[in-house]
Amino acid sequence: MVDLLGGLAYSELSAFERLTEDAAQAPSLEDKVALASMAAAEFGHFERLRDRLVSLEADPFAAMEPFHRPVDAFHEHTAPADWLESLIKAYVGDGLAADFYREIAAYLDADTRDLILTTLDDTGQSSFVVERVRKAIEANPKIAGRLALWARRLMGEALSQAQRVAAERDALSALLVGGVDRPGMDLAAIARMLARLSETHTERMSRLGLQA
Amino acid sequence: MVDLLGGLAYSELSAFERLTEDAAQAPSLEDKVALASMAAAEFGHFERLRDRLVSLEADPFAAMEPFHRPVDAFHEHTAPADWLESLIKAYVGDGLAADFYREIAAYLDADTRDLILTTLDDTGQSSFVVERVRKAIEANPKIAGRLALWARRLMGEALSQAQRVAAERDALSALLVGGVDRPGMDLAAIARMLARLSETHTERMSRLGLQA
Repeated sequence: MVDLLGGLAYSELSAFERLTEDAAQAPSLEDKVALASMAAAEFGHFERLRDRLVSLEADPFAAMEPFHRPVDAFHEHTAPADWLESLIKAYVGDGLAADFYREIAAYLDADTRDLILTTLDDTGQSSFVVERVRKAIEANPKIAGRLALWARRLMGEALSQAQRVAAERDALSALLVGGVDRPGMDLAAIARMLARLSETHTERMSRLGLQA
Repeated sequence: MVDLLGGLAYSELSAFERLTEDAAQAPSLEDKVALASMAAAEFGHFERLRDRLVSLEADPFAAMEPFHRPVDAFHEHTAPADWLESLIKAYVGDGLAADFYREIAAYLDADTRDLILTTLDDTGQSSFVVERVRKAIEANPKIAGRLALWARRLMGEALSQAQRVAAERDALSALLVGGVDRPGMDLAAIARMLARLSETHTERMSRLGLQA
């Protein structure tokens, strides 16, 4: 549990950092504010997860430590080349993370579940991203192919880092697949979860006007 | 009034941006989180000021526009050379801005005054800055002179940009010094305000272990 909260907390903190970096590159003050709002919301999530760790008498920084490498690697491998790639990363990444949290929340105690579910509703700003990306594709349809490829790379990289985490963190995989003392998801359930994640990813892509 | 809120809003947005840049340079994750918290709080202030502008039927981006140049100039002239300078800028800048807001809040309508006063209490984190700066000076007393000079430069630059704004924005200075239709502060009142700002600045400096 501490492992899971630590992983989520570091992901949120890291998302905050990348979004603020991207916001610094915004082509207008309106765009900057939109991305900064998403960043501030991620930081709010981080604070709640950190406080939960503290209330569980865990050291939040120690709990986050094992996740530095995979999360940093994800961001290193998915550095946006321009503003549209930043927007898509924010939108797709945020959506994927939210879906994943909702999936695993089912396996947690009620307090932690409520905490996680209430943090999911206020990043907002996604309609801003959808509008900006659709407008850019309308103005120049040629970019749609590159952007679709970009979103696929984000999804692939997220899955590969998630796999690495699962392989290295026994406690975390036990939470999902169960242990001797309690049942978890079987492989079929994991497959169904991945199918659901992939389905909502496809929906997000089509809202952006992109092929998944 | 729109002018004043626009100026405050752009200052907060800009403070958010600079703090996130500084947070990216933090020597540890704990330090990064501390500065990111201050940044997120500034962004919260920005959002409240922007919403107030919208409720006054003003375009927040147009209202902020006249303040881009002086606020950006302030930051260009006060780029921190290292992490300690970043911390001091965050602490001294935040404190000075808060004092200034409290002073001018007295001249505003009750709703706007309440908005401004309630935004002032949650940046927190200042005890973190005080502790870090005092520890650094303890470890190496030689740096105290340079840091004191740095804080004086921050104060001087803030005053000079504020003066420029007052000279260029008649509506804003009228709010402070009054106009034909209503009284404002006279020169003696402005002098007293500056004396109060300077006094609390000196208190902050001595908490940091620095000479003002």
